[in-house]
Amino acid sequence: MLRTSTCGELRKDDCGKEVILCGWIQRMRDLGGMTFIDLRDHYGIAQLAFSIELNKELYEKAKTFGREYVIKVSGTVIERSNKNPNIPTGEIEIIVNSLELLNSSDNVPFTIEDETDGGEELRMKYRYLDIRRNIVRNNLILRHRMAFEARSFLNQLDFVEVETPVLIKSTPEGARDFLVPSRMNAGQFYALPQSPQTFKQLLMIGGFDRYFQLVKCFRDEDFRADRQPEFTQIDCEMSFITKKDIFEIFEGLIRHLFIKLKGIKPDDFLVQSYHDAMKYYGTDKPDLRFGMRLVELNDIVKGKGFRVFDDAEMVAGIKVEQCAAYTRKQIDELTEWVKRPQIGGKGLVYVKINTDGTIRSSIDKFYSEDELRKCADAFNADEGDLLLIMAGDKAATRKALGELRLEMGSRLELRDPGKFKCLWIEDFPLLEWDEETKRYYAMHHPFTSPLEEDIPKLGTDLANVRANAYDLVINGVEIGGGSIRIHDKKMQEKMFEVLGMSKEEAYKQFGFLMEAFRYGAPPHGGIALGFDRLVALFAGTDSIRDVIAFPKNNAGRDIMIDSPAPIDEAQLKELHLKLYVKK
Amino acid sequence: MLRTSTCGELRKDDCGKEVILCGWIQRMRDLGGMTFIDLRDHYGIAQLAFSIELNKELYEKAKTFGREYVIKVSGTVIERSNKNPNIPTGEIEIIVNSLELLNSSDNVPFTIEDETDGGEELRMKYRYLDIRRNIVRNNLILRHRMAFEARSFLNQLDFVEVETPVLIKSTPEGARDFLVPSRMNAGQFYALPQSPQTFKQLLMIGGFDRYFQLVKCFRDEDFRADRQPEFTQIDCEMSFITKKDIFEIFEGLIRHLFIKLKGIKPDDFLVQSYHDAMKYYGTDKPDLRFGMRLVELNDIVKGKGFRVFDDAEMVAGIKVEQCAAYTRKQIDELTEWVKRPQIGGKGLVYVKINTDGTIRSSIDKFYSEDELRKCADAFNADEGDLLLIMAGDKAATRKALGELRLEMGSRLELRDPGKFKCLWIEDFPLLEWDEETKRYYAMHHPFTSPLEEDIPKLGTDLANVRANAYDLVINGVEIGGGSIRIHDKKMQEKMFEVLGMSKEEAYKQFGFLMEAFRYGAPPHGGIALGFDRLVALFAGTDSIRDVIAFPKNNAGRDIMIDSPAPIDEAQLKELHLKLYVKK
Repeated sequence: MLRTSTCGELRKDDCGKEVILCGWIQRMRDLGGMTFIDLRDHYGIAQLAFSIELNKELYEKAKTFGREYVIKVSGTVIERSNKNPNIPTGEIEIIVNSLELLNSSDNVPFTIEDETDGGEELRMKYRYLDIRRNIVRNNLILRHRMAFEARSFLNQLDFVEVETPVLIKSTPEGARDFLVPSRMNAGQFYALPQSPQTFKQLLMIGGFDRYFQLVKCFRDEDFRADRQPEFTQIDCEMSFITKKDIFEIFEGLIRHLFIKLKGIKPDDFLVQSYHDAMKYYGTDKPDLRFGMRLVELNDIVKGKGFRVFDDAEMVAGIKVEQCAAYTRKQIDELTEWVKRPQIGGKGLVYVKINTDGTIRSSIDKFYSEDELRKCADAFNADEGDLLLIMAGDKAATRKALGELRLEMGSRLELRDPGKFKCLWIEDFPLLEWDEETKRYYAMHHPFTSPLEEDIPKLGTDLANVRANAYDLVINGVEIGGGSIRIHDKKMQEKMFEVLGMSKEEAYKQFGFLMEAFRYGAPPHGGIALGFDRLVALFAGTDSIRDVIAFPKNNAGRDIMIDSPAPIDEAQLKELHLKLYVKK
Repeated sequence: MLRTSTCGELRKDDCGKEVILCGWIQRMRDLGGMTFIDLRDHYGIAQLAFSIELNKELYEKAKTFGREYVIKVSGTVIERSNKNPNIPTGEIEIIVNSLELLNSSDNVPFTIEDETDGGEELRMKYRYLDIRRNIVRNNLILRHRMAFEARSFLNQLDFVEVETPVLIKSTPEGARDFLVPSRMNAGQFYALPQSPQTFKQLLMIGGFDRYFQLVKCFRDEDFRADRQPEFTQIDCEMSFITKKDIFEIFEGLIRHLFIKLKGIKPDDFLVQSYHDAMKYYGTDKPDLRFGMRLVELNDIVKGKGFRVFDDAEMVAGIKVEQCAAYTRKQIDELTEWVKRPQIGGKGLVYVKINTDGTIRSSIDKFYSEDELRKCADAFNADEGDLLLIMAGDKAATRKALGELRLEMGSRLELRDPGKFKCLWIEDFPLLEWDEETKRYYAMHHPFTSPLEEDIPKLGTDLANVRANAYDLVINGVEIGGGSIRIHDKKMQEKMFEVLGMSKEEAYKQFGFLMEAFRYGAPPHGGIALGFDRLVALFAGTDSIRDVIAFPKNNAGRDIMIDSPAPIDEAQLKELHLKLYVKK
């Protein structure tokens, strides 16, 4: 090593030692005759001292350097007179007796500080400088530690990490694949995996008992906020298990990570059906750090002559505790908020249960105080509470109310960032109807097993067949999902049929899996956790970009390396391709 | 779990227990009134017993099953009368009292046994069945354990695993990239990384101190035996280090793996210059499990009138101990062997130092016994030894002799598969001249630093500039390589210039790296180990295909999933591409 110590490790006990340090100049202060340098490396910051009296030459040399210069110094550790309790090395400094410039630096485009002056675009372009900042470095170290602990935990439980291939075959079901033209096979393409789904199932058929992999997956989506074309999953599969085993083991994994990384023992995991989650929270990924459940009011409010409610498929609301004092202006602002296209509400009705015992609402014209009081009772409302009510199409009303609930939770600071509520959602619908293409799609994927008791409905009542599928939700974030898989050839064929795939088409796409089912496929199931999202949750950030070393922007570009980029005509030709330009 | 125990864990102490097992029928034996099933799962084999006397119905039911059927049984563990000392569960069997068929199986296309009747092609097509075989399963478990131990070791030493992107940018230097057309950016492409080289250097510039990653890399080569288009590296980089630190840490890693996985403490690692390796072994990846060094004979044999030697740039040979008794037929066969195009020898001269004190050779006409004895002395040959001598162009002669040395080592069983000789090769040439394109190429890659003392030669004597680069070789297999990198912008520009890249071209390709060098790049270096090859070495197999779960064949095809494959016209159009058909 060019150094004897790192910048983060020296303490009072080291005083008197001769050390060599390497690092970057974080900042310099000249106090007239004394120059201090904060020297930074991966492990911390150490203070270097140069005195004009002790060594004029070094003192002068140091002054010629600037921020982010890379230097190597040797010197003696001494106790500081002016201690800094904010950093671990704050009790010592190094009196430098030799100084070597390893590399200089131009002015950096933004300050390398916790609070930087660089905007996101600039920091992405110079991501290698952004990474020097504590917050980014710490996020990446957290990510490493979480990956390491996840592997340790799974290894302990006899899971075997198996690498599945990255160059696979395109399947039209689901999202778009990224494709890779083959030079050796003209006109043919590999695809990058959206998940190792079929391979992990083949591993189970191959007799592997517990598989896992931290694996890169790829999805060519129309990019949206906080999606990345490449992302990482903790992918798992097990044989001879039931849903209960998956719940136990992955609760164990999440618990292990919370304890090891955050020193937190999370509450018991809750389990909720998809049906109940939609009914009570308007979403299949409810944030359970606070209550504020949706209450349905059809029975109470319909048939009183208020057209908006009478014509609606669903009238429902939430109770916002102790907000009856909201002003007209505040209510108007909320009404505008729910009308935003992302929320899609048509309007907002309020009922205030005032502390003086009165009840006031925006629908006083249509409902007597008695009727409103029945409403309040449905919410178990107390004096001082505010009811916010919406009406319309069932799905849309639930969604909008679910969003409003989260918004009110945030505004009232009920979503404590230090609190973690973990929850399984189960019994998802097996199929989703698509109006546009007039067919059913697998809600999870076509390998998901239906619930045993719903199998008879597969011929007659597709919309109500539930899947043996489950999602893991923490604080309103979908962390992962999985299912018990189909392992029977006939059932898999049935499933493809239900999805409108001809037998021929099914075999063309998944022939190898159907073939594999002929040779003793065991009952099996699994789960995949979104690792980027899990790390973001632990890091306390909303954006997965913050926990990825070199992320792409929302248009799928890496603006640091400027990719994707045009290629040579010769490269294109080698791949048996021509650009197709729309006329 | 559907079971209470695995098939590998029951012992004599478990006798009397009621257990439930799940697994595959490995084989069935009917002994008239008793049927025994070997039930197999991931963990081992347990013997199930069905008796016509105890339960006729179960006995009959069991007989209807066949190999590879998946069953679930419950029963009582008892001590076997007929113990099998060859398997860990050989002291017990299970008297079955209930039997459930979980899945049936068609006849498998080859036997699921250690010695199978399936050829490689068939086993690749049904890889999920091949994986059921002990040998394949154990290789994949070994791979998992090696990855896990490598991570543990590096984590312990403060290495941080950072995931670098898979969708990057194509660079024309080096081998061919696999390309990924961008749907969102018409006419533009991502490339898959051949290694995370530039990203790990950017991490160092970003202040990371010790990086590692087990990472998939991709190379679109004209496929050769035992190359895979996707392969895995243990990729590492460190700042503020010298070559010595790399050697120490990665010797430590290899040692750790040998101790943990094979219970072997390997000998001290040797260090050899590229120059010496080529001179003494005719290769830059010598197998040091045996001696048989190349000895150069120019000074002794030239100028005696033997044209073949006189006209040759180099005459050199090896000493094969105690093989002077080789017959004419054996020597002829060896001569044919060296003349094969892969070896490229033009012929083979022998000198036998007979046990009766005489010396005989195929060049007796040209050399006196005294002259031949001088030859023998150069090899330090004893009575009974055989000298095999070749002549020709220096590089070709060394290569052919190096191959012959390996062949003789194999024939004489000097390459003990239980012995491991680890070796660093250092001081590689920085550049390689290519006759075809009439330019120098980087032997390692363009980011490799020249040796400090050779920098002055960069202007004048390119062929003799040595790189601060090193390879790790074990038993003649190149396991990895790395270098101390260039961290100075001017030196990197100089390097691109030497490689015939215009400044414009260099900035177009590596602008982000050149830009990064402006902002305080630390001295750094690293190494990448070929993980597939390392696992193959530990598994005792010559082919990396044996240690990859789902490998591709030598034509880059996955014959199990039948990929690559044609895609829809619509998909092609979405990617702004047309197929280009040669006329």
